[in-house]
Amino acid sequence: MVSKSQIKFIKNLQQKKYRTENKLFVVEGIKTVKELVNAKVKPYAIYTTSNAVLEDNAFKCELISETDLKKISALKTPNNILAVFYQPKTKEIIEDNWLVAVDDVRDPGNLGTIIRLCDWFGVANLFCSKQTVDCYNPKTIQATMGSLARVNIVYGDLEAFLKQTNLPVYGAFMDGKNVYKEDFTAQSGVLVMGNEANGVSKTVEELITKKISIPQFGNKTTESLNVATATAILLNEIRRG
Amino acid sequence: MVSKSQIKFIKNLQQKKYRTENKLFVVEGIKTVKELVNAKVKPYAIYTTSNAVLEDNAFKCELISETDLKKISALKTPNNILAVFYQPKTKEIIEDNWLVAVDDVRDPGNLGTIIRLCDWFGVANLFCSKQTVDCYNPKTIQATMGSLARVNIVYGDLEAFLKQTNLPVYGAFMDGKNVYKEDFTAQSGVLVMGNEANGVSKTVEELITKKISIPQFGNKTTESLNVATATAILLNEIRRG
Repeated sequence: MVSKSQIKFIKNLQQKKYRTENKLFVVEGIKTVKELVNAKVKPYAIYTTSNAVLEDNAFKCELISETDLKKISALKTPNNILAVFYQPKTKEIIEDNWLVAVDDVRDPGNLGTIIRLCDWFGVANLFCSKQTVDCYNPKTIQATMGSLARVNIVYGDLEAFLKQTNLPVYGAFMDGKNVYKEDFTAQSGVLVMGNEANGVSKTVEELITKKISIPQFGNKTTESLNVATATAILLNEIRRG
Repeated sequence: MVSKSQIKFIKNLQQKKYRTENKLFVVEGIKTVKELVNAKVKPYAIYTTSNAVLEDNAFKCELISETDLKKISALKTPNNILAVFYQPKTKEIIEDNWLVAVDDVRDPGNLGTIIRLCDWFGVANLFCSKQTVDCYNPKTIQATMGSLARVNIVYGDLEAFLKQTNLPVYGAFMDGKNVYKEDFTAQSGVLVMGNEANGVSKTVEELITKKISIPQFGNKTTESLNVATATAILLNEIRRG
């Protein structure tokens, strides 16, 4: 049984404001819940309508009715599990390796894919400009899987951050230098990726020290690559050296 | 004014079966409609509620009421334009260059991203197994933009196709050979990408001549890269040589 005040509390967590205030976030579906528990993200409360999940004993959870699940779920057709997790604590960024910075990435799926790529390529820190979509958006979490727990994600003033860093600042641009010709033997740097529609903003562009681009082999069209696939290619280029 | 029979006809095109039968597909939203018109995809009919779109004269379209648009749209909140296009004709695959084959990719966004990547990297042909999501799914089209018109997409029996080809067949596997050590100076080959959950199927795996993998630099976790980002990295590796 979920109390009225709990229902209200959990429903509120669908909004970024309440997630940030309470340092919590909501996840639905057994696969992602398991991933996060395995990645040692601390649960606040886990609710399920499934006896099988309860008896599986993989984590502590509370059996509730389908009616109650419907009340707390953000989904039209709720999965049989909903979990509230504590947001992992952010750590100070230590600039001894590569890090990725995103300048107003708005699509939650793209941000989720970028977090997963950071994890894959051993990028421990991700800096997000203030206007970037919330990394605790349900669609972001679905795309990140357990990676969310393994990448330190810091939101803040991207310009201020780039002004103070001693690292070389690389940015992806259509007219940048061919990335295949760039020397990535340096052990550290910042890779800035821009917004889906507008790319890197003018004020941030002024702080980029190296503009790079991915060569286009097909018909020359004006379309660019999606920001998540471009991040995949550039991180691969950086790590392959 | 849209007639009752036209409404029914357009609504039916939301289903793959009717799209295939009629060799048509539906697109909503001005950006994608313009992209497809510019990419020379042939319109069957374009409907708009916007006088501005009509007067812009970028393409021939019919002014209809908001009520009519609601009746033909698949969206809860329709954009002010809906277009029906003819499906581009598929051509026979000429095996003189690299081509991508997908083995039951189910997510329409992933397929769309892969089509866009083929276009970017000059891969003219994409072979899709029969169980692969329809490339005329609205979410696929949203992710492909105009690339849909520039890549020849053929659906068929993937095993039969791989059995008859003379090209080397590469496949992405977690335990494959490090892709950085692979020699891609050959001018042609097939790159097979697997299903989101299950990877390449067993029967297709037997037809792969070279198993490759993308090195993981972060914490060794069991998670793999998303199929679309893995395709991005592998096509980049192939083209950079």
